[in-house]
Amino acid sequence: MKQTPSSALSTLGARTQDPPIAWLMRHALEKPGIISLAAGFTDNPSLPVEATRELVARVLSNDESGRAALQYGTGAGDPNLRELTANWLRRHDNAPDDSPGHQAQRLLITHGSQQLLYLVAEALFDESDIVLVEDPTYFVYLGIAQSRAIQCRGVRMTEDGIDIAHLEQVLKELQTNGALKRVKALYLVTYFQNPTGINTTLERKRAALEVLEKYEDMAGHPIFLIEDAAYRELRFAGDDEPSALTLEHAPDRVIYTGTFSKPFATGIRVGFGILPAELARVLLRLKGNHDFGTSNILQQILAAALETGAYANHLEKLRQRYRAKAEVMLQALKQHCGGLLTWREPKGGLYVWASTPRTVTTGLDSECFRVALDKELLYVPGQLCYAADPARQSPNHEMRLSFGSASEDNIRQGIERLGGVIQALEHRGA
Amino acid sequence: MKQTPSSALSTLGARTQDPPIAWLMRHALEKPGIISLAAGFTDNPSLPVEATRELVARVLSNDESGRAALQYGTGAGDPNLRELTANWLRRHDNAPDDSPGHQAQRLLITHGSQQLLYLVAEALFDESDIVLVEDPTYFVYLGIAQSRAIQCRGVRMTEDGIDIAHLEQVLKELQTNGALKRVKALYLVTYFQNPTGINTTLERKRAALEVLEKYEDMAGHPIFLIEDAAYRELRFAGDDEPSALTLEHAPDRVIYTGTFSKPFATGIRVGFGILPAELARVLLRLKGNHDFGTSNILQQILAAALETGAYANHLEKLRQRYRAKAEVMLQALKQHCGGLLTWREPKGGLYVWASTPRTVTTGLDSECFRVALDKELLYVPGQLCYAADPARQSPNHEMRLSFGSASEDNIRQGIERLGGVIQALEHRGA
Repeated sequence: MKQTPSSALSTLGARTQDPPIAWLMRHALEKPGIISLAAGFTDNPSLPVEATRELVARVLSNDESGRAALQYGTGAGDPNLRELTANWLRRHDNAPDDSPGHQAQRLLITHGSQQLLYLVAEALFDESDIVLVEDPTYFVYLGIAQSRAIQCRGVRMTEDGIDIAHLEQVLKELQTNGALKRVKALYLVTYFQNPTGINTTLERKRAALEVLEKYEDMAGHPIFLIEDAAYRELRFAGDDEPSALTLEHAPDRVIYTGTFSKPFATGIRVGFGILPAELARVLLRLKGNHDFGTSNILQQILAAALETGAYANHLEKLRQRYRAKAEVMLQALKQHCGGLLTWREPKGGLYVWASTPRTVTTGLDSECFRVALDKELLYVPGQLCYAADPARQSPNHEMRLSFGSASEDNIRQGIERLGGVIQALEHRGA
Repeated sequence: MKQTPSSALSTLGARTQDPPIAWLMRHALEKPGIISLAAGFTDNPSLPVEATRELVARVLSNDESGRAALQYGTGAGDPNLRELTANWLRRHDNAPDDSPGHQAQRLLITHGSQQLLYLVAEALFDESDIVLVEDPTYFVYLGIAQSRAIQCRGVRMTEDGIDIAHLEQVLKELQTNGALKRVKALYLVTYFQNPTGINTTLERKRAALEVLEKYEDMAGHPIFLIEDAAYRELRFAGDDEPSALTLEHAPDRVIYTGTFSKPFATGIRVGFGILPAELARVLLRLKGNHDFGTSNILQQILAAALETGAYANHLEKLRQRYRAKAEVMLQALKQHCGGLLTWREPKGGLYVWASTPRTVTTGLDSECFRVALDKELLYVPGQLCYAADPARQSPNHEMRLSFGSASEDNIRQGIERLGGVIQALEHRGA
C-alpha cells in the first residue's frame, strides 16, 4: 500500500490538533453507561419532536412553500428569517424598529453560530494576529485559534463580566511590546458564559468597547467586539441584559453571534450573526465558498417556529426544565460536595463552574480526572478553557459541570460520585 | 459614524472576491421575469415535497428517533448514514462488500459536497500551492482557490475526460520550473462535468492517477486525485461509469466527493466525501472547528430516504425529468441556434456547453452578455470557468446553458432569445 506522508498537508492541516471536546464526546457517545457532565449537549427529553413535526408539516403542506424550502436559497440566508431574527433581537434589546444596531441587511444565517465564529476568524485574523479572550473562555474557540495560529490573550473576569482594568492593562502591555497592531478583536461570551456561567452587564460591554476604541488609533485599525450570545435564551433567573448591539458604535464595531440550535433543537443547526457592513460582505463571500448558504429547510422550520409562536413556547418550557435541572445539580453539590468544592450558582446556560481544593488538580492527566473516569464520570477540566499564557501555568483546579444533557438522576448520581472522588483525593493529599 | 478601514481584514478576507455566481444568482432571484439559464438550481416542480413530508413524519414519529434527529450528532456524521452512503457507492461501483476503496470509516458527512471541497482545500493547500484543474472547470472551485491563493493550472479535456498527454506535459513543465513540490492534487469533475457535460471514463481516471504517482517522488509527497461526483446521479442516458474509488491505490490517493442535495433536494444540504485515512482525520478536526458536524435532522431525512427507497424512486423521476428538459433545450438549440452555435449533447447533469462563432465573445463584459441581459436572458459566460493562465487569454466564446431550474417553456423561449442575440451580433460582426 502507498504511504501518505504528512508532508502533503497544508501548514494549517498539519497544525490543527484534535479538539479535546471530540475525545470527550466520543467517550460520552460510546459508553452509554457513563455519566457525562461534560458534553454541551442539550436536554434530550425536552427536544421539540412534536412541535417540529407540526412545523415541517406546515412548511411542506403545499407545493409553493414546500418547494421553496427544498430549493437552494441565497447565501446570506432566507430574507424572512433574517427579518424575524432581527425583530426578535430588537424585542430582546428593547430597541426601536429603526435601531441602527439591529439591521437585518447586516445579518447572516449560518450552520450554527460556530460557523459564524469560524468565518469571522477567517475574515479577520492572519497567523499570529491576536484575539483577546475571557480567562477562562469557550474552549472550541481556542481550538479555532489553535488551528489558525491566532494568538489568544486572556483577560480576567469579575462577577459582572470582563475585568476592564485588566483589559486595559493587557492592551497597554501589547502596545509596549509593539504587538497592538496585531490585535483585531475581543471575544466575549456574554450570557451565562461557557464555562463560568457569568453574565456580562451592558455597562461592562460599553466600557470594554470604549477601551478597545481608545487603542484603535495606535493599532491602526478597528478592534472589534465579538459578542457570542449562544446561551442568551437559556435564562432561567433574573432579567435579560441588553446586548452590545444597543451601543452607539455597534453598527461599526460589534459582531453579535447567536443561535437557534441550543434554545430549540441542536439537530437543527441554524445560527446567525450581525456584523459591520464590510465584514458582512466579506463573510457572505466566504460563506459562498464554504457552502453557498445554509440549508433552506432548516431555515424555514425556524421561521415557522418564530412566526407561529412555537419557538417562544418551547423556550418557556426549556427554561423551566433547565431551572429545575440546575437546581438538582446545585442541591446535589450542597449535599455531596459541600466543603469540598466551591461553585457559582448560574442564572442560565448549561453549566456550573466548580473549584477544587488546592491539593486536587482537575486536568486531563490529573488523578482526579482518571479516578472520575474509572467511576464512569466525565467533566470538562477547567484547564482546557484557558488560553496558553507563557507568564503563568494554566489554572488547574476547576471543572465545568453541565446539567444540560444528563437526566436528573444522573446529575444526582454524578455529583455524588464526584464528591466521593474529591473526598478520597483530598484525604490522601492531606 | 466610525470608519471601518479594510486594514482590519485578514489577508484572506481582503483578497476574497465576490464570486460571479453570487451576482448571477441575485439577478435570477431578484428579477422574477428574467429567464435564467445560468443558475445551477435544480428543477423546482419535481422537488420531493410529499416524499420529504412523509420522511420527516417517519423520523419524528416517535420520541426515540425524533429526539435523536433533533440532538447533536458526531462530527463525522451519522454512523448509519455513513454506512448507507458507502453501500450506495459500492453498489454503483459494482464493488464487493470489503472493497478497500469504499470504507465507511473514511467517509465524512458535510453540509453539501461544497463544504467538503473547502475543507480539503484547507487541509492540503498552503498559499501558492498548485491544484491542477480541468480546462474549463467548476467556477466555484476557482473561487475557493482565488480566496485561498491556491494556484490553478488548467489541463485540457477530450471527449473522454482529462487529456492525459497534456496532464503529463503540464507536470513536466512544473517540474522544469521547480514548482512540482507545490502540486498537491488534480481536481476532476468526472460525471457530466460542470460546465462541459463531459463524462470521464474509468480508464482516464486510472491513467491520470498513474501519471500523478509517477511525479510523486519528485514532488516529495502524494498528489491526490480529487474526484467530484456531484452530478453522478443525474444520468439520463448511457451507463454509469465506475468511480476512482475502484482503483487500486484509491484508499491512499483518491478523495471522492458526492452529494445528496442535487439528486434529492438542494434545500437539504447534505454531501459527503471518502478520503485517505490521514486526510479524513484532519478534516474531522477542521469540521469540528467549522460547525461540529452536519445538521442531524437533515442526515436522518436522507437516511430514511435511502432506507425506504424514497431516494431511489425520486431519482428515477428526476432523471426522466432532466432527460425531457435536456431534450427540450437541444431541440430548441437545433431550431433557433443551428448554424450559430455548436454544442455537446449531454448524457446527464444540468448543462449544455455551447460555443459561439469567432466574432462573438460571451464574457461578462461582452456585448453578447449585455444584449442577452437586456432581453432578460442569463447564461454563465464560459470565461468564468477557465483558470487564469499567463500563457493565454481565457477562451471567450463559450457559454454554460442550464436546463436545471428553468421551465420547459422558459428553456424554449430562452434559447429562442439567445438565437436572436447571436444572430444579430454575428450579422453586425460580419
